Amino acid sequence: MHHAREIVVETRGKGLFEFTRAVVDEVRAAGPEIGLCTVFLRHTSASLTIQENADPSARRDLERWLERLVPENDPDFTHTAEGPDDMPSHIKAALTATSLGIPIIGGRLGLGTWQGIYLWEHRAQPHRRRVLIHVQGQ
Amino acid sequence: MHHAREIVVETRGKGLFEFTRAVVDEVRAAGPEIGLCTVFLRHTSASLTIQENADPSARRDLERWLERLVPENDPDFTHTAEGPDDMPSHIKAALTATSLGIPIIGGRLGLGTWQGIYLWEHRAQPHRRRVLIHVQGQ
Amino acid sequence: MHHAREIVVETRGKGLFEFTRAVVDEVRAAGPEIGLCTVFLRHTSASLTIQENADPSARRDLERWLERLVPENDPDFTHTAEGPDDMPSHIKAALTATSLGIPIIGGRLGLGTWQGIYLWEHRAQPHRRRVLIHVQGQ
Repeated sequence: MHHAREIVVETRGKGLFEFTRAVVDEVRAAGPEIGLCTVFLRHTSASLTIQENADPSARRDLERWLERLVPENDPDFTHTAEGPDDMPSHIKAALTATSLGIPIIGGRLGLGTWQGIYLWEHRAQPHRRRVLIHVQGQ
Repeated sequence: MHHAREIVVETRGKGLFEFTRAVVDEVRAAGPEIGLCTVFLRHTSASLTIQENADPSARRDLERWLERLVPENDPDFTHTAEGPDDMPSHIKAALTATSLGIPIIGGRLGLGTWQGIYLWEHRAQPHRRRVLIHVQGQ
Repeated sequence: MHHAREIVVETRGKGLFEFTRAVVDEVRAAGPEIGLCTVFLRHTSASLTIQENADPSARRDLERWLERLVPENDPDFTHTAEGPDDMPSHIKAALTATSLGIPIIGGRLGLGTWQGIYLWEHRAQPHRRRVLIHVQGQ
């Protein structure tokens, strides 16, 4: 069984936006007992990450640390036509993930207790991000 | 054919711990001639990486370099309740991988000659890390 | 249906080399309407990334930024027998990706409009890099 669907995750500028529920729902609708769920982001200026879903301070520190590692207005950047947040966005995306593969076991998505699935927006403005969710199994 | 199993990888604090053998064994037990093996870590303060399996000095340099990039006791961190090694762990996990997809070809896991599969422990204390191995194919 | 094939991507030293076309061709030859394509690199001193395929300046800035983050001749490196570009290569590979999972939907590889698939060469010399492409679906 193979099932694929595109969903939209709305962001409000830089930061991590959880969409675990949408992935869990898709797996439940497809219904395999055992299998694999692949989450894929169709953009290059945002990314995906699996992070702790408990304390929001962890996500804030994560965002701040990456912003400090890849600041805007780096004098070495030449790709600046789309704004000061564009080139840092591509770098941040390269350092994190565009696709995630999560096994399905016992009829459930195999996330650990403290794991949530996040879209990491790297642009300053809100965006509607298109995400593909593919579910397969038996 | 879909097959999934959870294994435990025991760590002894920060560093890279190879578990290639456990993945190879799982693929052999499942037995597909052609397919895909997905390895997924159920934690957010450790990660997965495929690295050179020959010279241990490469792994030591890798560990030291990442520790220097993401040191403990960063004054910007606010998520500090679980110890000085906790927030660096989440950042290191975000910069590396939580899931790996490795094709199976000719009845064997498609790793290159020098590739090994490692669990990268980012916490200072030893941990028992739960890893899902999913094998599919025909 | 499962299909796997090894291709060779030739590089000309450090930088990003696009091979989207080879992956698209493999998916088309295998022919699933819905499924998953996994791209896997069999080396630890190069990596994979999905990046913007429009403006070459974005890739040049990406390469320059990562080179600055992980320069050669770091005095902390001990793994230096294979040359000054070897240890930085392993670190750059750990920070980016060795495998990519891309869903197939509507008979097409689900890349976004501006996404291309790149092999990121981290060694100074040209290399012939072996890449596994696995396609499955129905």
